[in-house]
Amino acid sequence: MTLSLEPCLLLGPGPSPISQKVLDAISQPTLGHLDYQFSTMMAEIIKLQQYIFQTKTAVSFPISGPGSAGMECCLFNMIEPGEKMIVCVNGVFGARMREISERVGARVVLLEQPFGEAVDLEELQKLLETHPDTRCIAAVHAETSTGVLSDIEAIARLAKKYGCYTIIDAVTSIGGVPFYMDDWGVDAVYTGSQKCLSVPPGLSPVAFSRRAIEKIKSRRQKVLSWFYDVNEVLRYWSNSHATSKRTYHHTAPVNALYGLYQGLLNLSEEGLECAWQRHLGCHLFLEEKLTELNLELIVPKAIRLPQINVVKVPEHINAQAVRERLRQDFSIEVGDGLGEYAGKVWRIGLMGEGARIEHARQLIEALTIIFKEGEFYVS
Amino acid sequence: MTLSLEPCLLLGPGPSPISQKVLDAISQPTLGHLDYQFSTMMAEIIKLQQYIFQTKTAVSFPISGPGSAGMECCLFNMIEPGEKMIVCVNGVFGARMREISERVGARVVLLEQPFGEAVDLEELQKLLETHPDTRCIAAVHAETSTGVLSDIEAIARLAKKYGCYTIIDAVTSIGGVPFYMDDWGVDAVYTGSQKCLSVPPGLSPVAFSRRAIEKIKSRRQKVLSWFYDVNEVLRYWSNSHATSKRTYHHTAPVNALYGLYQGLLNLSEEGLECAWQRHLGCHLFLEEKLTELNLELIVPKAIRLPQINVVKVPEHINAQAVRERLRQDFSIEVGDGLGEYAGKVWRIGLMGEGARIEHARQLIEALTIIFKEGEFYVS
Repeated sequence: MTLSLEPCLLLGPGPSPISQKVLDAISQPTLGHLDYQFSTMMAEIIKLQQYIFQTKTAVSFPISGPGSAGMECCLFNMIEPGEKMIVCVNGVFGARMREISERVGARVVLLEQPFGEAVDLEELQKLLETHPDTRCIAAVHAETSTGVLSDIEAIARLAKKYGCYTIIDAVTSIGGVPFYMDDWGVDAVYTGSQKCLSVPPGLSPVAFSRRAIEKIKSRRQKVLSWFYDVNEVLRYWSNSHATSKRTYHHTAPVNALYGLYQGLLNLSEEGLECAWQRHLGCHLFLEEKLTELNLELIVPKAIRLPQINVVKVPEHINAQAVRERLRQDFSIEVGDGLGEYAGKVWRIGLMGEGARIEHARQLIEALTIIFKEGEFYVS
Repeated sequence: MTLSLEPCLLLGPGPSPISQKVLDAISQPTLGHLDYQFSTMMAEIIKLQQYIFQTKTAVSFPISGPGSAGMECCLFNMIEPGEKMIVCVNGVFGARMREISERVGARVVLLEQPFGEAVDLEELQKLLETHPDTRCIAAVHAETSTGVLSDIEAIARLAKKYGCYTIIDAVTSIGGVPFYMDDWGVDAVYTGSQKCLSVPPGLSPVAFSRRAIEKIKSRRQKVLSWFYDVNEVLRYWSNSHATSKRTYHHTAPVNALYGLYQGLLNLSEEGLECAWQRHLGCHLFLEEKLTELNLELIVPKAIRLPQINVVKVPEHINAQAVRERLRQDFSIEVGDGLGEYAGKVWRIGLMGEGARIEHARQLIEALTIIFKEGEFYVS
């Protein structure tokens, strides 16, 4: 018996559509994780990751796990038990950063915004004044749960002013909206393979600034996790190693990394600026068409993410039934709301390969048919 | 530009050769991680994992990371800070269990054997007598670094007698040699996708007995890692959920799991007993042929693993040069030694799809040619 699956157009909050090139890459013959061909590819991945994070100096490599593992890697390494940090929570992923930070023993000061708002910079500054012993600020660039963009450049500027490190969740942002690690002065950042990079889920590219690496190297207590410990992982992934000098840490997910390599290569060939423009253009097209269908986006324009469109479901419409109809009869996936938004919104992702006008059009045509039938109206 | 790699026969310590069926599976179209087709496959994976671990009652699912992440998941969940545990160290992977256990705050009592020996049951019993407050015993079933099999059935029996839980590393054993979770009474076990399951690296099937789950559910302190926390992961992976009820934890590595599904299916279609016999038969063939080449296996017969053959490199031969020649001119990978064995042995894996007579023969023919030339003799 062999696995055979029906394809589906992925316009939810991730995974995003995967190009045939990437699927072909991941089914290339498996090599040893210390093989010279593989090692050469690893060196390329490091360079490509530096490009997507827009850094020349940071140490970058992919964590062999999904975005949540990347989140844990950054928090586990950057925080020592008892250190004070500010966690900005304005959605599900900020809340997850808080949860993990508390588990590793940080004294968390919470900057909590209502669901759907961006991180409030004035409030952040007030907290930094009140808590001068803050060591780190953690924040989410693109909140996948709410479709909200926060101003990481400004947060990093405040961090610098108050002598803090920044730990940034850029899972949904990298490749979709501008992010400049070096220019902004971000210290630790992680993203996910399955959003705007259009690579299957399971890998989390991370990057650490030079001063972040210094902090990690001078920890008083070992990182609680051996698997996440950057000091250990770098024996295998460091770009300062000649390829023949990589030493075993864990067995890298060889085929998944083929996919990451190909996805990063595709993005670098297109160019980040072009990809950002493509996401924006596609979003504007979708927005216009949604308006024609009398649907509105929940997020104010100024803080709206182009790659994840959170649509308020009108009260007379059964949100879940429409999503199921899209999936069953049109082979299109859109996402449910998360947290407070569950059942109240649709999350339409136009991420990576999904950010194409033809995909947005396909969705709009399907919605138009569904609404005409009217059978999903709630009485 | 697209990725294109030369294949290589993987006869090292893992990854093992991957069948075309599995490669075809991982390049199937990516689906959403909450999609009904995917959810149906997840339910199948759970059942197939119960089969490979030989358990009817344990909770089983794959960790979205390599074997080392599975190791951390088991240790993070099973141990609470301050608890006493015995860690059996007879190679690199036992040492890793010790390292991780100490990081999460266990009071580790070490049962250390020289490299290349099996866990000493008498010594273990003595330690259990001396330390009646021991909560867990951690041991490696098949030490990939030394090629040694330890008697997990006996270890689990001792654990039961002294009221301890067992945490077993079965990364290299599952699919290659008999393992009976229920019959032996193992509490927590992890394996790796890339050994005798012949699935690309990056996933770690785990299983927890009912009493292990009770221990985890009644912890006084939260698991230090949110990503590894079985209480959290089970919201997504539990087989007690109707498929439609799975809720989001992290984004599962969709395509990698296609590969795991196909690999487990292949193994279940062959049947575990047949697979064990195939590994043994292949090993006996290799052993005979190695003897003809005047090469000897380092591990005594009684504790020798069929799937990982540790060959003592004669002093007059340059171990590294022969490995490179095999790789470059014969496209065959064999492994270097790890730890104390580095540079002194070859580790020849006949694992999963690698455990075929034709592969063993291919290696022997290559070695025969290389030795005839004599250029790798050390003066």
